[in-house]
Amino acid sequence: MIVGEVVGSLWATRKDKKLNGLTFLVIKPNSYGNPVQHDYFVAADNAGAGIGDTVLVTRGGAARKSLAAADVPVDAVIVGIVDSLELAHR
Amino acid sequence: MIVGEVVGSLWATRKDKKLNGLTFLVIKPNSYGNPVQHDYFVAADNAGAGIGDTVLVTRGGAARKSLAAADVPVDAVIVGIVDSLELAHR
Amino acid sequence: MIVGEVVGSLWATRKDKKLNGLTFLVIKPNSYGNPVQHDYFVAADNAGAGIGDTVLVTRGGAARKSLAAADVPVDAVIVGIVDSLELAHR
Amino acid sequence: MIVGEVVGSLWATRKDKKLNGLTFLVIKPNSYGNPVQHDYFVAADNAGAGIGDTVLVTRGGAARKSLAAADVPVDAVIVGIVDSLELAHR
Amino acid sequence: MIVGEVVGSLWATRKDKKLNGLTFLVIKPNSYGNPVQHDYFVAADNAGAGIGDTVLVTRGGAARKSLAAADVPVDAVIVGIVDSLELAHR
Repeated sequence: MIVGEVVGSLWATRKDKKLNGLTFLVIKPNSYGNPVQHDYFVAADNAGAGIGDTVLVTRGGAARKSLAAADVPVDAVIVGIVDSLELAHR
Repeated sequence: MIVGEVVGSLWATRKDKKLNGLTFLVIKPNSYGNPVQHDYFVAADNAGAGIGDTVLVTRGGAARKSLAAADVPVDAVIVGIVDSLELAHR
Repeated sequence: MIVGEVVGSLWATRKDKKLNGLTFLVIKPNSYGNPVQHDYFVAADNAGAGIGDTVLVTRGGAARKSLAAADVPVDAVIVGIVDSLELAHR
Repeated sequence: MIVGEVVGSLWATRKDKKLNGLTFLVIKPNSYGNPVQHDYFVAADNAGAGIGDTVLVTRGGAARKSLAAADVPVDAVIVGIVDSLELAHR
Repeated sequence: MIVGEVVGSLWATRKDKKLNGLTFLVIKPNSYGNPVQHDYFVAADNAGAGIGDTVLVTRGGAARKSLAAADVPVDAVIVGIVDSLELAHR
């Protein structure tokens, strides 16, 4: 999984009906001090996240396991709000 | 998922029959101001997208969940047309 | 999916028996004018492609959907020969 | 799979209930002397790993195969503690 | 799939029991003359490969299709030993 910050949101009225009711948030991956910033991406929210929250995101086929329905076409889901991230050495 | 712009289209007459009827569009990923441009890729359209549209694309095994048949060999599908993308800070 | 050019072929006599009968081709991903060239990779051919052809390649679990058997250990399959690729703006 | 070092841990009280009981550790991928450091990521622990351990991590859909339940939304799991890593030439 | 050279091996005594009996080898991806070297990774061996061999590796969910059991948590498997790799132009 990856840790990231919620930095935006996305609206799409014309979309696959299976996506109805989901909130789509823009995620900025945590770079852990690395100067190369990874690209932002979009995740469906399943943790009640908001702008500025640090979140845990699961990607790939595993992401759908967090949703009630198995046939939702999403490849990234916010599965938790991160309370703290402790690094032993950087 | 990722957000991108539809910048082209692709034609292939000799192809897996399971791909018949699908439209294949070339996607330029949104770089969110990042100078490193990610590579373009091709997605099957399931949202009625056209050139210049900003779209939401699901990739991997989840992409097929947007199509009627489960055995279509596509790894990226346009699942929505983006109306607006709001970023809190960049 | 990605578009690439067939630039080579690979021979392997000692291999998983489930791969017997498949042709493995080396793919150079289309860089769309991007100076950073992505790495070549190998795909099983399911479209009758040859050296120099521009092809459409599906990767990941979706790739196996193009083959007759579901248990073939391949993660990339050529699913079509590209006739034309039109870009609106680069 | 990839080899990495456990360099941190993550706490999240508000999360998908299917994640309860799992420990989430931050992994620094082994760069094998390559100056380009890959981004850290988070993996669920299934090997009793601790800070400073060198671990073997499985990612993608295969990661869930290491857990008792098939529907846990994780995309990376620590499947072993590495005792030694021998390289023939670098 | 990708082509790589076997450059090392890995030992892990404390690991998921489903991994027992597998040999884990370190793979250096073939760079095809590209100066940017991709990161080494670890694959389970299913082709009797040894140090110095050029091998064909399948990754992702397809990798498990090469093993006898479907629930082994590996995301990369050596599925063949490459006899020759012919490139038309570089």
